[in-house]
Amino acid sequence: MLKDFEKNKPEDKDSLNEEIKELHSRLIGQQQLLREKKLPVLILLEGWAAAGKGSLIKELISEIDPRFYNVVSPVIVPESEMRYPFLYPYATAIPENGKLIFLDSGWMESTVRKELRLEISKEEYKRRVRSVNEFERQLRDGGYLILKIFLHIDKDEQFDRLEALSESADTEWRVTPDDLWQHREYKKFLKAYDEFMEETDDPIRWHVLDGSRRKTAVRDALKLLVEMIDKALKKERYVGEPFDEEFPLLKMPRLKDVDLSPVIDDDEYKKELKRLQNRLSELHNIIYRKKIPVILCYEGWDAAGKGGNIRRVAYPLDPRGFDVHPIASPLPHELNRQFLWRFWTRLPRTGHICIFDRTWYGRVMVERLEGFCTEKDWKRAYNEINEFERQLTDWGAVLLKFWIHIDSDTQLARFTERQNTPEKQWKITDEDWRNRDKWPQYETAIDDMLQKTSTENAPWFIIESNDKKYARIKALRIIVKALEKACEKQFKHSFE
Amino acid sequence: MLKDFEKNKPEDKDSLNEEIKELHSRLIGQQQLLREKKLPVLILLEGWAAAGKGSLIKELISEIDPRFYNVVSPVIVPESEMRYPFLYPYATAIPENGKLIFLDSGWMESTVRKELRLEISKEEYKRRVRSVNEFERQLRDGGYLILKIFLHIDKDEQFDRLEALSESADTEWRVTPDDLWQHREYKKFLKAYDEFMEETDDPIRWHVLDGSRRKTAVRDALKLLVEMIDKALKKERYVGEPFDEEFPLLKMPRLKDVDLSPVIDDDEYKKELKRLQNRLSELHNIIYRKKIPVILCYEGWDAAGKGGNIRRVAYPLDPRGFDVHPIASPLPHELNRQFLWRFWTRLPRTGHICIFDRTWYGRVMVERLEGFCTEKDWKRAYNEINEFERQLTDWGAVLLKFWIHIDSDTQLARFTERQNTPEKQWKITDEDWRNRDKWPQYETAIDDMLQKTSTENAPWFIIESNDKKYARIKALRIIVKALEKACEKQFKHSFE
Repeated sequence: MLKDFEKNKPEDKDSLNEEIKELHSRLIGQQQLLREKKLPVLILLEGWAAAGKGSLIKELISEIDPRFYNVVSPVIVPESEMRYPFLYPYATAIPENGKLIFLDSGWMESTVRKELRLEISKEEYKRRVRSVNEFERQLRDGGYLILKIFLHIDKDEQFDRLEALSESADTEWRVTPDDLWQHREYKKFLKAYDEFMEETDDPIRWHVLDGSRRKTAVRDALKLLVEMIDKALKKERYVGEPFDEEFPLLKMPRLKDVDLSPVIDDDEYKKELKRLQNRLSELHNIIYRKKIPVILCYEGWDAAGKGGNIRRVAYPLDPRGFDVHPIASPLPHELNRQFLWRFWTRLPRTGHICIFDRTWYGRVMVERLEGFCTEKDWKRAYNEINEFERQLTDWGAVLLKFWIHIDSDTQLARFTERQNTPEKQWKITDEDWRNRDKWPQYETAIDDMLQKTSTENAPWFIIESNDKKYARIKALRIIVKALEKACEKQFKHSFE
Repeated sequence: MLKDFEKNKPEDKDSLNEEIKELHSRLIGQQQLLREKKLPVLILLEGWAAAGKGSLIKELISEIDPRFYNVVSPVIVPESEMRYPFLYPYATAIPENGKLIFLDSGWMESTVRKELRLEISKEEYKRRVRSVNEFERQLRDGGYLILKIFLHIDKDEQFDRLEALSESADTEWRVTPDDLWQHREYKKFLKAYDEFMEETDDPIRWHVLDGSRRKTAVRDALKLLVEMIDKALKKERYVGEPFDEEFPLLKMPRLKDVDLSPVIDDDEYKKELKRLQNRLSELHNIIYRKKIPVILCYEGWDAAGKGGNIRRVAYPLDPRGFDVHPIASPLPHELNRQFLWRFWTRLPRTGHICIFDRTWYGRVMVERLEGFCTEKDWKRAYNEINEFERQLTDWGAVLLKFWIHIDSDTQLARFTERQNTPEKQWKITDEDWRNRDKWPQYETAIDDMLQKTSTENAPWFIIESNDKKYARIKALRIIVKALEKACEKQFKHSFE
């Protein structure tokens, strides 16, 4: 793409200005329609240091109402200081419906730079490329419009610009050691950029623009943007088709075949609880020291005992090192973004434990059954979730998922008890009863979920919870075992 | 408080356990009532290194439903790396209505440590103490329950604990160089803690607990918490009384006396716009380099031309270095917190410019007129806002506030034009017409606001905008002048 790039020819300045003006006025007209159709737009601007990404963005936004856009300039954190998955700064920055976001360099620059610095291994580079493709596809399938631009200048041009910037005290800070390094290694970068673009040209293609002629680049970028939006406005909002990717799945039993009779006697419960909690407390220290991120996911029937189970796990943990995220219905600003956004924003830092009390699996349970998303959406979600979870475990996270299971009679007994105990009444709502009426539909959805999303890296565990104490001990044992295994090795550093 | 502290006597273990159990069960009962009454609770835990803050929090939360609380452990950033005001980590962490937050050390530790390290001057220390008192009072006045605990151990006890931690590989990382420094300088810290607590004991008092007896400390802390909540549950939610603090105010004209006739001719407009935008672009570089935070506030009548004015200011800025925050009605999670929270969370980093398109002044305009808050709330807000703004300028921010002004006839003409121009119709809503009917009430509210909140550090500027072009040039001139002044000196470092 870059190697055989042909520079733009000079164009008549007045007619360029004329074109830009006209494109701006089309964009002004589009912003309100974007809002009405609730379309989110992500513009990724990559390119050489000093190619003029900042000025280009400035021109692109100059006529847009500030209520409709945001500019984000993610910082590239050295690999050794990364506390989150590499996609985190971008995944948490995606726009709301009806808004535009301009990313001033993104996943390409961070991946390529770290590859060339040997901060990440070849294998990790490949995993990142795969994650990038998944991420872009998921956004597109969720109805996002994505424009990817690479702003190109040749080595001589870059030299002139870096020199010009260095000449004034007020702009010399813009020239970073990284920029100078890139300039020295221009050829290497050229090759690496080209490779990255080839590997990530599908499903969202790249557009290389000539940065050496600023006005032409502005016109070309505006044109790409306005035409992309125009096309989208004429159609229904895109909803991606479901498809199966090959994920190695663990065999899970059907819920109806699960034996719910296991119990634990009180003495053993107390003894084991103490032992496991002590062990967990020790492990938490090691996890912190080895910087392993831990994600525990709880799903289960209403009144199955999730809360009590979580409390027994949380109790021995250092409160400074864990968070519990209760997941309720999405808030408006969450609903207005791709469905995984509100989980991306809640991920733990390395060395921290986070417990999700309900999770992203709401997509394939309540959202499926209540029609909160389209059929295509929830059918696509199994794959999207598997990808998301692989991105998390690629990062090095321990990821465990618990289905806290009871039978229908036990639920009825617990509902009735809640109803009849004044201080527990708040725990039972009409909605719980309505959900109970849908037990068979939920059972189908849960079975589907367990079959399609139990992967080796992020397995499901069915926790028999007719006896809550048994359930707590079982969950604790699984957690302790998994953490012991993880603590045996060093945190999977990206350079492996 | 600490100097003459008397240790607890040993107590009977069984009866302590009994008391703790009973207090826990009261707390369990309270959590639902807190939610119903929408009361937010903030528990600040300060104390010596190794005094057991973490374990104490662990015990306090052990029986609370994870949906109701959060634990926050703010990191103390060295003064030279601070990108936000010193209260930022705490002000952005305040709980929602109905929830509890446990702060594992907070504004006391960060202020005292920096004072002793000579990272901040005596004057800055005093400013911070004042800000802390303002901050706590504002939360209390907004209905927050606040419990401040200091966990005390003597020097020998601290020695034993630090030694015990250092003995195991899995806990030795918990002993930081700062902890050892504190231990060496125990006496100095004792004095400084005492002073800080004396200076911040009103309006929210401190409770010193004996950290050397863990169970007793748990019981005492639980008791304080449960009794504080109990007391609050029995009463109406507290709403603070308005009061006037002495802020040196600038004399502002009444709106009706503002001469709206100024205009600018087209040639001068173009010339000046270009000149000022070029200058602003240069200044942005200096601001970035000198790490000066800039906050520009826009308020004004509907259709006064705020948007166009903001766009002319934003245009010459580097999009990587500024943000525009359009402020609409608060979202549910914003409405559930003290009213300044959604502005604290949007503050610019040092060296960045942020433009608020509508601001915290909504409190004394729309919220006042529409009854979205109580009379006490908006009357108190003038003072709260002056304090907030002083905290920002104490930090070193340039803070300018524009009232974009037009007369009623001009508004009518612009409304009508919007109504009659298809691509502008979205800009005009029924609500705009309803607000227009309340012009006289708004005028009173705006006059009050201008009289009561134009301070030397954060002045209001009335921008005559019957001629939008005139308004843009006037705002740009004010901004350029203020930034030039700010750029002349170094960023007010805290040690001055």
